Amino acid sequence: MDSKSKKKITASVLIIGNEILSGRTLDKNTQYIAQKLGERGIRLMETRTITDNKQIIADTVNELRQKYSYVFTTGGIGPTHDDITAESVAHAFGVSYERNEEGYLSLVSHYGEENLTDARIKMSMMPAGVKLIPNPVSGAAGFHIGNVFVMAGVPNIMQAMMDYVIARLEGGEVIHSVTIMCDLPESKLADELRELQYKNPTVDIGSYPRYASGTFGLSVVLRSENKSLIENLAQSIKQKIENMGVEASVLKE
Amino acid sequence: MDSKSKKKITASVLIIGNEILSGRTLDKNTQYIAQKLGERGIRLMETRTITDNKQIIADTVNELRQKYSYVFTTGGIGPTHDDITAESVAHAFGVSYERNEEGYLSLVSHYGEENLTDARIKMSMMPAGVKLIPNPVSGAAGFHIGNVFVMAGVPNIMQAMMDYVIARLEGGEVIHSVTIMCDLPESKLADELRELQYKNPTVDIGSYPRYASGTFGLSVVLRSENKSLIENLAQSIKQKIENMGVEASVLKE
Repeated sequence: MDSKSKKKITASVLIIGNEILSGRTLDKNTQYIAQKLGERGIRLMETRTITDNKQIIADTVNELRQKYSYVFTTGGIGPTHDDITAESVAHAFGVSYERNEEGYLSLVSHYGEENLTDARIKMSMMPAGVKLIPNPVSGAAGFHIGNVFVMAGVPNIMQAMMDYVIARLEGGEVIHSVTIMCDLPESKLADELRELQYKNPTVDIGSYPRYASGTFGLSVVLRSENKSLIENLAQSIKQKIENMGVEASVLKE
Repeated sequence: MDSKSKKKITASVLIIGNEILSGRTLDKNTQYIAQKLGERGIRLMETRTITDNKQIIADTVNELRQKYSYVFTTGGIGPTHDDITAESVAHAFGVSYERNEEGYLSLVSHYGEENLTDARIKMSMMPAGVKLIPNPVSGAAGFHIGNVFVMAGVPNIMQAMMDYVIARLEGGEVIHSVTIMCDLPESKLADELRELQYKNPTVDIGSYPRYASGTFGLSVVLRSENKSLIENLAQSIKQKIENMGVEASVLKE
């Protein structure tokens, strides 16, 4: 089957995150989303982290949803005053921000109606016309509207939401990858890699150095829709490295 | 002294990073840069991760350098074919991409002239007119041009470069922070926090829930240029939590 028969599907991640920008918290959500998208053949093209500001959130959502097939946001859908993502997304789409009955019932079943404070009820306030993304942990659902998926920021809740979403998304052609690892400074392999990239324009060849305790190491990552092509290329790179008297290992995904 | 006497200085981080977008690598550089900026009173307003594409890099650099006081890039300044940041930044500034003599001498002194392969010499190719950011690890310098700082992607090299840069940058008014930690779901404190935020518009009050092993926890972060104000507010929040029969601790930065 022609690999071109599946269209290219793209995505972006938008982190609503003063706590990331202040340096207080390390963002691990992007990597989880990136991996899940990769497994479904969806290309993550861009990520952004922005401040908790309604107009900035709305403008960025509008820019990204026009540029990419899907937009995934994390953060800002809780019960407190600084959780303004739902309101901002409503603003972006030009729809009203209102109580979602299904979201409200989800809160009722989680907390019991007698425990539904105003703060908790706020978590059922969403843009008009959304579909819910269930929250198995706290009952406060995420949602999607158009091609925008709005998820929690707490990592294990976000992960449950992402797992729910990814199973229901149209995927694309999966990009396979093979990694060749060795202890060489990357300049030693640069000429060979440049030539290989030139000869194999359909393969994305990345060279990622690392440095620890005085030793340089290198991961060469080959990515392509054509699995056997990159597996063969990996063997030839491994051979080149071993011809320099250096050990190399090939790691398939 | 009037806290308004220091101007607001802003920044953005631009990660040139196919390896981040593929989910292969967790980005830790952003957090390091964010923390260093915070210590100097520089507000990190936005981060982006983009693909290794010359036009996309150039366009994004041009957008960010107009929006913020400083732009910090990481990644893509090594010796291999996929390292295109220097060339892309030259394109962004409309200046030539050429051998930097000081950068070349740094490579000579690190590798010895006899070991300077073409691949290594590539690491002295930079936009015309830059100033170098020394690389104490491998001799391949970063650089800055205008308000754009171009650094390595390998974390310990990037950190050395950031330490060099930050010591030489104009800083702003430092934002202090105090964190109150407790084991409460954030909805229990939402009303109090909303009221406090309303009464203290100069303080940025963030509420960050966490969830692990069936227990909800909460960090309330107060941020302001006025240190004694947030320390007093933190004590009153701690008291409110303890009045609910729950332990709370205050963590100053």
